[in-house]
Amino acid sequence: MPFHLYYWPTIQGRGEFVRLALEAAGADYVDVARMPESAGMGVPALMQIMQGDGARPPLAPPFLVEGDLLIAQTANILQHLAPRLGLVPADEPSRLWAHQLQLTVTDFVKEVHDTHHPIASSLYYEDQVPEAKRRTKIFLAERVAKHLGYFERVLAKNGGRHMVGTALSYVDLSMFQLVAGMRYAFPRAMAAYEPAIPLLVALHDTVQAHPRVAAYLASPRRIPFNEKGIFRRYPELDS
Amino acid sequence: MPFHLYYWPTIQGRGEFVRLALEAAGADYVDVARMPESAGMGVPALMQIMQGDGARPPLAPPFLVEGDLLIAQTANILQHLAPRLGLVPADEPSRLWAHQLQLTVTDFVKEVHDTHHPIASSLYYEDQVPEAKRRTKIFLAERVAKHLGYFERVLAKNGGRHMVGTALSYVDLSMFQLVAGMRYAFPRAMAAYEPAIPLLVALHDTVQAHPRVAAYLASPRRIPFNEKGIFRRYPELDS
Repeated sequence: MPFHLYYWPTIQGRGEFVRLALEAAGADYVDVARMPESAGMGVPALMQIMQGDGARPPLAPPFLVEGDLLIAQTANILQHLAPRLGLVPADEPSRLWAHQLQLTVTDFVKEVHDTHHPIASSLYYEDQVPEAKRRTKIFLAERVAKHLGYFERVLAKNGGRHMVGTALSYVDLSMFQLVAGMRYAFPRAMAAYEPAIPLLVALHDTVQAHPRVAAYLASPRRIPFNEKGIFRRYPELDS
Repeated sequence: MPFHLYYWPTIQGRGEFVRLALEAAGADYVDVARMPESAGMGVPALMQIMQGDGARPPLAPPFLVEGDLLIAQTANILQHLAPRLGLVPADEPSRLWAHQLQLTVTDFVKEVHDTHHPIASSLYYEDQVPEAKRRTKIFLAERVAKHLGYFERVLAKNGGRHMVGTALSYVDLSMFQLVAGMRYAFPRAMAAYEPAIPLLVALHDTVQAHPRVAAYLASPRRIPFNEKGIFRRYPELDS
């Protein structure tokens, strides 16, 4: 029985952290909203769960359906999936630690999103450009180093090859996505900053070369970065 | 052996969700940064862990120390504590669901924080007032109903008395804190909005009257709301 992932079909967004875990593990899954409406899937199937009469409705995608279970919130989905996918160590302290790191990823992703939407998600970027410039300038000067520098220290403390334990975990996959996303959104700022995070850059490369991840990235299943997702390239913000 | 909670000593902030759980359960705990430096505690003890050479350092408070275990991220702490405190049902689907709701609380708390800090946490509120006014206007018009309306629906679907299961859980405590905080920060807007969330308001009142919670709220252990925390009263934003 495949996992059913529900997420917006045209962006990487928060769902990408889950897609990467499923792909890296070679899991059997259906990316429901990207399948045909004629097959009862597509975005209407996602909206039906959002607006339906389920006892425990999610507020927002992504969410995962596994049999009777419906789980939302990216980090919660990953926490649930990872033991099944072999993407986290077995001991409870390591699982709590991996989840703690993923929640810190969640915080950073929100900050990245708010660089282009500092006033409201419901407004277009074009309607909040002055505020976006002001917020992004401080984000690039302070927040990138705070978060990526923290992850670099964590990686160094753990020996430099993996974020948690001694094998690939979903936190490693998330680090790949953060580096890739930051490079897409802020190529100038990241080129200047990357010398400070050599271990994270090496981990990005290791993940990118993982056979199943590499196959995924080369496939049409990997949606390109674009200006509808979390990581957006607006050159006027990247200085 | 008491739980050791580390959080800023002068605000409710994100740590308050953990304090409420510990207090409601009558748990034995030490609020370390509020204890004397002469006893080896206080803020220096918190900073020492943040900046120390622990193998798994937290990025930010709150964090909880229980024996050898150090756990950060509010929702992660609550997820770990709740089974020990009797504040979540025993079955795994309910625990994932409770955690999902708490992560949605986390999202909302971040939005509340950013009403007064839309540009940067490192700037004073006074240096971002025009942006704060613009963000808060949309927050009050759209985001409060989105989040509190969602929690009201969840509560209704579960019978109206508790957010998860049939007894007090940490999610109920978090709902109390959201209503109390929103009333403090936005008394005008909340007075207008509260008729739309009668079940949440009733749950707030039930939690407030819980004997151990009531004792806590009446004690000096409950730090008053103030303009250093998440929920801040700036009358110019409450319209």
